[in-house]
Parts: sequence; C-alpha cells; structure tokens
Amino acid sequence: MQLKIIGKIITPYKDRSRVPRQFFESKTRGRIEIFDQYKEGLKDLENFSHIYVIYLFHKSKEYKLKVIPLFGKKYRGLFATRYFCRPNPIGLSIFKLLRIEDDILHVKGVDVLSGTPLLDIKPYVDIFDKLKDKNIERGWLKESYIEGSPDNIE
Amino acid sequence: MQLKIIGKIITPYKDRSRVPRQFFESKTRGRIEIFDQYKEGLKDLENFSHIYVIYLFHKSKEYKLKVIPLFGKKYRGLFATRYFCRPNPIGLSIFKLLRIEDDILHVKGVDVLSGTPLLDIKPYVDIFDKLKDKNIERGWLKESYIEGSPDNIE
Repeated sequence: MQLKIIGKIITPYKDRSRVPRQFFESKTRGRIEIFDQYKEGLKDLENFSHIYVIYLFHKSKEYKLKVIPLFGKKYRGLFATRYFCRPNPIGLSIFKLLRIEDDILHVKGVDVLSGTPLLDIKPYVDIFDKLKDKNIERGWLKESYIEGSPDNIE
Repeated sequence: MQLKIIGKIITPYKDRSRVPRQFFESKTRGRIEIFDQYKEGLKDLENFSHIYVIYLFHKSKEYKLKVIPLFGKKYRGLFATRYFCRPNPIGLSIFKLLRIEDDILHVKGVDVLSGTPLLDIKPYVDIFDKLKDKNIERGWLKESYIEGSPDNIE
C-alpha cells in the first residue's frame, strides 16, 4: 500500500540533535497543517484535549534489527524501542491539542522535526488508551529511565 | 512510501460483525506472527507488559471525511474518530503481551480481524503514554460512551 501525506507538522526543530526524545519530555508548541482536501475531517476534534499523531520518520535510514535507543546504552531489539529507523518508519506521538483554527491544529508537546509528513490523526481517548492495569511493565526502559530523567518519575 | 507487511495478527474474528469495537472491550486472546526476517527485532520486548500494535485496515474501503463511528449515532469528522476507512488505513491498538515464543507473540485484548497485516510494534511505556494530565477531554465520546457502556466507567 502506498502512503498518502495528508499534512505537515511544523515545529521549532530544524535538526534532529535538538528534538526532545519523547513528547512527554516536551513542552514545546507547534502546529499541524492539514492539506485542504482533508480539512472537513477535523470537525468534532476540537473538544478532545489530546491526539495521537501518526507520521512518517522522513529522515530515517535503512533499519537495523538491533539498535541503541535514545534512552539506553545497550543494543536492544528494534521492536522493543521507538527508534526512528524501522521497516515501516512510522512515528507515533501524543500531543496536547490547544485549539483548531481553520486547517491548523495548534499543539503542545511536539517531539518531531519541522516539516514531518503527517499520515493520520486519531483522538486520544482516556478510557481506551490510559490503561487501568496496575502492573504495567516497561522492560529495559525501567532502568534506563531512572538513569536519564529521575525528575519525571511519579 | 510503500508499506512493508512484517507479520500477521491471528484472532478468532473471521468477519467484522463480531470484532470488539476497541481493544479495551476485549478480553480475547490472539497471536502475532512476525515474519522470519524481522524476528531478531523482538529481543527485549518480552519484559514489556503492553504493546502498541500498528496494522493495516486491510478491509477498508474508500474513506469519507464524515462518518458515523461505532460508538456514536451522529456523523463526526473522520479524524475525531478511529473509523477504519481513512486516507491512510492504519490501525492502532494496545494489546497485553502475555509471552513471546520464538517468532510468535501471544497477546490479549485483540480487536482486529484474523489475518490483519502487521506494520509495526512499539512498546507501550506508561511514563510516555499513560497521560498524567487530570483534564483529558474525550469530546463527543463522552456522551456516546455513557450511552453505550456505563459499566466500564471509572
């Protein structure tokens, strides 16, 4: 199947070295510009506070099945990471939706390069996506996270 | 960009009428079979309890920008829904990962047709994905959900 680019994500990040590693580390504002022919599909979205944004890692290179992820120091299996070079270089972030003006979504928490091609937007729905399970295990990220960002731990 | 199918999701659901509307309504077990050449990328995934599964809505038809979603009765903007006919018919679910045996992931909470083509797996990471925000708004789904499934409300 051939992917369709349906818009663009505009952020302050022109090169990858300054992009936050994940959206939860970002308080940065940006905007999503949907191409005209898809604008009608934005109706009713404005009352959601958060959205899943699915996009193309357009600067990705050939993938490898073992990678050193941004939060770690050891090689890990690719699918146990969110590394950007993947068989299908599809990225997934959750942004806070501030407001929608015409075909522009003003968002917060951006963690992508400016110009990132947009593939899809889905509402983040707490009753679906905010898992109630008390025993969520985050594998190797448990230790790596503690190393990297202790201030964010609950 | 051309998508690569990297595996298949096997579930008890052979036709769409019996598929749960969302993974959070499903306690059904299924499995994900990764194709051989990607198997190495599964390393380190087994210690995560939940995974994002990104797949192709392979039975999707031409999309429309206004749809009546599964949880609703009124037309809504497509991007304010998770309806399966989309410009890029990419689906997103969260499954519980029970165990991995060789190239097979045993999962729980499946909400897709059997044979669904797999595009990507990413770890669900509570510190990223389980939003701490106390004011998550779920737009039109607020009322629709109350109509449909009051027993699931916290």
